[in-house]
Amino acid sequence: MLDADAIARLRLIRTRSIGPATYAQLLTRFGSAQAALDALPDLVRRGGGASPRLAGVDAIEREAEQVAHAGARYLILGRDSYPALLAETDTAPPALIVAGDVGLLTRPSVALVGARNASAAAVRFARILAHDLAAEDLVVVSGLARGIDTAAHVGSIDRGTIAVIAGGIDVVYPPENAGLQAAIAERGLVVTEQPPGTEPRARHFPYRNRIIAGLAQGTVVVEAAMRSGSLLTARIAADYGRDVMAVPGFPLDPRAQGCNALIRDGATLVQSAADVVATLRPFGAGRTVAAPPRPFEYAEPVVEPNATERHALAGLLSPVATPIDELIRQSGLAPAAVQTILLELELAGNLQRHAGGRVSVG
Amino acid sequence: MLDADAIARLRLIRTRSIGPATYAQLLTRFGSAQAALDALPDLVRRGGGASPRLAGVDAIEREAEQVAHAGARYLILGRDSYPALLAETDTAPPALIVAGDVGLLTRPSVALVGARNASAAAVRFARILAHDLAAEDLVVVSGLARGIDTAAHVGSIDRGTIAVIAGGIDVVYPPENAGLQAAIAERGLVVTEQPPGTEPRARHFPYRNRIIAGLAQGTVVVEAAMRSGSLLTARIAADYGRDVMAVPGFPLDPRAQGCNALIRDGATLVQSAADVVATLRPFGAGRTVAAPPRPFEYAEPVVEPNATERHALAGLLSPVATPIDELIRQSGLAPAAVQTILLELELAGNLQRHAGGRVSVG
Repeated sequence: MLDADAIARLRLIRTRSIGPATYAQLLTRFGSAQAALDALPDLVRRGGGASPRLAGVDAIEREAEQVAHAGARYLILGRDSYPALLAETDTAPPALIVAGDVGLLTRPSVALVGARNASAAAVRFARILAHDLAAEDLVVVSGLARGIDTAAHVGSIDRGTIAVIAGGIDVVYPPENAGLQAAIAERGLVVTEQPPGTEPRARHFPYRNRIIAGLAQGTVVVEAAMRSGSLLTARIAADYGRDVMAVPGFPLDPRAQGCNALIRDGATLVQSAADVVATLRPFGAGRTVAAPPRPFEYAEPVVEPNATERHALAGLLSPVATPIDELIRQSGLAPAAVQTILLELELAGNLQRHAGGRVSVG
Repeated sequence: MLDADAIARLRLIRTRSIGPATYAQLLTRFGSAQAALDALPDLVRRGGGASPRLAGVDAIEREAEQVAHAGARYLILGRDSYPALLAETDTAPPALIVAGDVGLLTRPSVALVGARNASAAAVRFARILAHDLAAEDLVVVSGLARGIDTAAHVGSIDRGTIAVIAGGIDVVYPPENAGLQAAIAERGLVVTEQPPGTEPRARHFPYRNRIIAGLAQGTVVVEAAMRSGSLLTARIAADYGRDVMAVPGFPLDPRAQGCNALIRDGATLVQSAADVVATLRPFGAGRTVAAPPRPFEYAEPVVEPNATERHALAGLLSPVATPIDELIRQSGLAPAAVQTILLELELAGNLQRHAGGRVSVG
């Protein structure tokens, strides 16, 4: 069963106002999940809000029973065999729930994603590509969606496939992939960050996409329309500094537009597993089998901002999303003090974080 | 009718052992076509060969009559309204024979080429792309072949199309394009470097391709298999420092392989006329309407190599193609002397020139 530290971490994670970025800040600031839990009421009070409803120990223990009942287990960020490449990303899920062969997480991997309504030719191409990538000892990561994702898993299940799902480990989606999902939990690996019982909703898919991009050395897109989820996965992979590859298509097919746009924007055009391997190799195979980093082991020196400082920073915040770097420069405060004040405001529900390290209020 | 200089130039051009590169060397060396004609017997004798059968004045006058009879005219490199961009290339045809609107040669242009056995979708796409490019006031240059070339001309004939053909101006090829060729000679421009009556043979098509690439600011390839003529046109365009663009295709179609390979090698992926325009603009529209350069106006100082120098250079030549720069460095001779000796050997049929300024003997 779970140890005290794991329970404390899960209590933080399952608390509504605490996302991966806030979680990381809390552990950095307080050195342990338990210390963060102890400090939370005070932090939130200073931020001007009501104390958050912390997830209880009993709720976490019930969740852990469901996880075990589903034949799954937790991987905790900074502990255990949490996947190293995912741990490097700035919004790494604090905990994953996985079912299947966790050994796949230590092997070089590539994500293969694309349209749900893919053409028959593209589905066939994706299945063959996944098979050939697996034959090159690359684990194929995808999202178990209809179309390209399904083909990617089918093509690679015999030699290594990881399905990242948007809902709970015990929830099947899409329904027609029930057999495939069960087979991957048996012979591959199913991964999610959502607690058991979570029905996948539209908002869950972007979260799922960042895990796909984060787990893999690179992402290959096969048939994707403009503004599709697959393109977002590719953009996230690029943000993470991973290789982005795309299979081109003839311009008259709208499902080619996304891939062609990626190539125009600098993604590598790939037509075969050999092309993918040639693109990935320089990344360094050694990196993926390295021991996971251990973040959060040391707390930063605690800087307790005073009332004047809190007031000065509050005066700089506005409904316009502002880079934290800018707030530090304009306030003249120590970076740690600024981070502490922002964390307090956030936990109290009085601050929103945005992409690119920007924050806003109101 | 033709003036004396034009007749002298054409006599050189129509002499079997004199290609565009040799022609350029002769005019640079002797300052005029007539001076080169006068010097040829001596040059060839020094190179160790029999004097070449020079084309006679009467043969040239008969050719000029055929040109006039076909409703065509000559454009002489370095004179008249010879197209400026083509004149910049190192193997520019010394004379073109053209029928139609020569004003098209002064407008910005783009080449659009591709597979003869193109898919129906690609043919339709090429026709629309050509139409849209012409609507952007770009003249569309192509090769009047079946498939993509035909579509390129059909799409742009109303607003500006140039067909570069591999045979004589009075020879129709392919037969089914007889009507289109006549229409282009009427409303567009038909261009060739071959004399009237020339039936197009396989060896003529690469020569034709270099004119297509040389006339245009950039070359767009739509559907081209690996090792196709369209790819060669694109490579030539790249060698000329022109923009190379390609329309991608799904990898399962062999006709997509060439375009996809071009994109991998750095060609710009284009999906529309707007993409092409965006790629071409930085080239500078002003450049294409500039007056043609006037090469060959001044002869280089004549350097007469002596027997010792001839012997030294001959000792460095071998069946292995060797860069001329290397011969100059190793021989220690003046560059003009080396060029003169090589020219003599070439005219005598004892030297072959290769890509990249390399030569071999034997």
